[in-house]
Amino acid sequence: MAVRPGSSTRQRVIVVEGGRPSSRRDALATEEPLELRLVAGQERRTLAVTMRTPGADFELAAGFLYGEGVVGEREAIRRITYCVDASVEDAQRYNIVNVELASDTLPDLAPLERHFFTNSACGVCGRAGLETLSERGCAPVAAGPVVTPALIYGLPARLREQQRIFASTGGLHAAGLFSAEGELLALREDVGRHNAVDKLIGWALLAGMLPLSQCVMLVSGRASYEIVQKAMVAGVPLLCAVSAPSNLAVAVAQSFGMTLIGFLRAERFTIYSGAERVILG
Amino acid sequence: MAVRPGSSTRQRVIVVEGGRPSSRRDALATEEPLELRLVAGQERRTLAVTMRTPGADFELAAGFLYGEGVVGEREAIRRITYCVDASVEDAQRYNIVNVELASDTLPDLAPLERHFFTNSACGVCGRAGLETLSERGCAPVAAGPVVTPALIYGLPARLREQQRIFASTGGLHAAGLFSAEGELLALREDVGRHNAVDKLIGWALLAGMLPLSQCVMLVSGRASYEIVQKAMVAGVPLLCAVSAPSNLAVAVAQSFGMTLIGFLRAERFTIYSGAERVILG
Repeated sequence: MAVRPGSSTRQRVIVVEGGRPSSRRDALATEEPLELRLVAGQERRTLAVTMRTPGADFELAAGFLYGEGVVGEREAIRRITYCVDASVEDAQRYNIVNVELASDTLPDLAPLERHFFTNSACGVCGRAGLETLSERGCAPVAAGPVVTPALIYGLPARLREQQRIFASTGGLHAAGLFSAEGELLALREDVGRHNAVDKLIGWALLAGMLPLSQCVMLVSGRASYEIVQKAMVAGVPLLCAVSAPSNLAVAVAQSFGMTLIGFLRAERFTIYSGAERVILG
Repeated sequence: MAVRPGSSTRQRVIVVEGGRPSSRRDALATEEPLELRLVAGQERRTLAVTMRTPGADFELAAGFLYGEGVVGEREAIRRITYCVDASVEDAQRYNIVNVELASDTLPDLAPLERHFFTNSACGVCGRAGLETLSERGCAPVAAGPVVTPALIYGLPARLREQQRIFASTGGLHAAGLFSAEGELLALREDVGRHNAVDKLIGWALLAGMLPLSQCVMLVSGRASYEIVQKAMVAGVPLLCAVSAPSNLAVAVAQSFGMTLIGFLRAERFTIYSGAERVILG
């Protein structure tokens, strides 16, 4: 019987404080590879292997596929299962997720491989990434909610309160989805920033909640291009990050009409794009 | 004439503090894709596209190739250049790095694609990752230095002092290489944690300093499997992280005899592996 890996692992460590060592048991965030396979009729293909914290693996798979444009709606997925192949060792069984598509043939996966590549024979740049998103049919996000600074200030504390694995290991990123009233709807954690966002969006996809046009998303770390792109594809109009965004993250937000807020700490934040969704005194 | 992208970008933002907005100009960490191409004789191949902060691109390429086992020594690289193809747009020219190998044919790149895949038809797990490292010929790191807690306590402040881009943008990870006496030898910054480590190791490779068997490495964030693996391949006997390691990061350190220290803050740290390199009172 396969043992499902947990999201944290206990281990004996030595804490050295003020030069003095003491031994204790500590919890570590679990990091294991996940192989994501697409199945359509008789066709199957390994799409990606990603390092992730076990838990919410089906949501991770669904969210990843949605963010990459491989599936566009919940109905495109027939079933998600762990590998049941008898030839697979027990320890690996929970590290392989099969996503069975409703269609009988695999979609064209070339766009996945063309990420950031322009149509010319040779070339790659951030602008090409924006063009690729437009070519995929990504449209500006909806007008969505308008919120007060006070509501935004309060989000990190609400996220932190519920970060169960972070509380025990100190080693995880989190992504939270909030209503326009600041109520926490869902929270996902992972050793990978982008995985936490994939899990959250996968949860929303499988729950039939996309697009997230009335929601606010908060990520515990920085806002990279990849994070903003995933939130934008899911229709999030307002994305907040506890740390800094990159220039390309801001460019995506501006191009698709998203509000992007960074350095959200205590009674302070910075608006990089879409200030019209924040009520300013 | 192509303009080389900088490591930070200026932008007008709105800071909202205590509910009151004020406008100012701010610096953002630059994030741009880098396409890494291998050239050997008449053969050429795109190996990877990674999001990175421009700067130290040749080191990034060299360090990535070393960490992946594509090149095993400095002499395997004949030349590293930016793309000079006339068909490439100016803006993209500094986002493509050609690594010309000394050999006339490309190496077998299949191992790169097999990351974490076992030899069986179906399966992936953390243990397989460790086995792959052993199969690549990775041996335990050298005995290396033995240091005091006081030396370790002092490393983060020395790193932070020199984090030029972080100081202006707040949005970058750093990796620093120190002598056994705690002297900072080199520091690299990037929006991606693993890129900062690749840049640092690439610098050492190109300077003929590998293996780093008398050095201490410090990373500004968490220690993931990937980070520890890269440091181990470069022969680093003592790796410190400001934040938490994952369980798989600890497993790699233990397997290859590295000292792994986490949560290095103020007068406190946690030893996860290899306590024999720290002088404990």
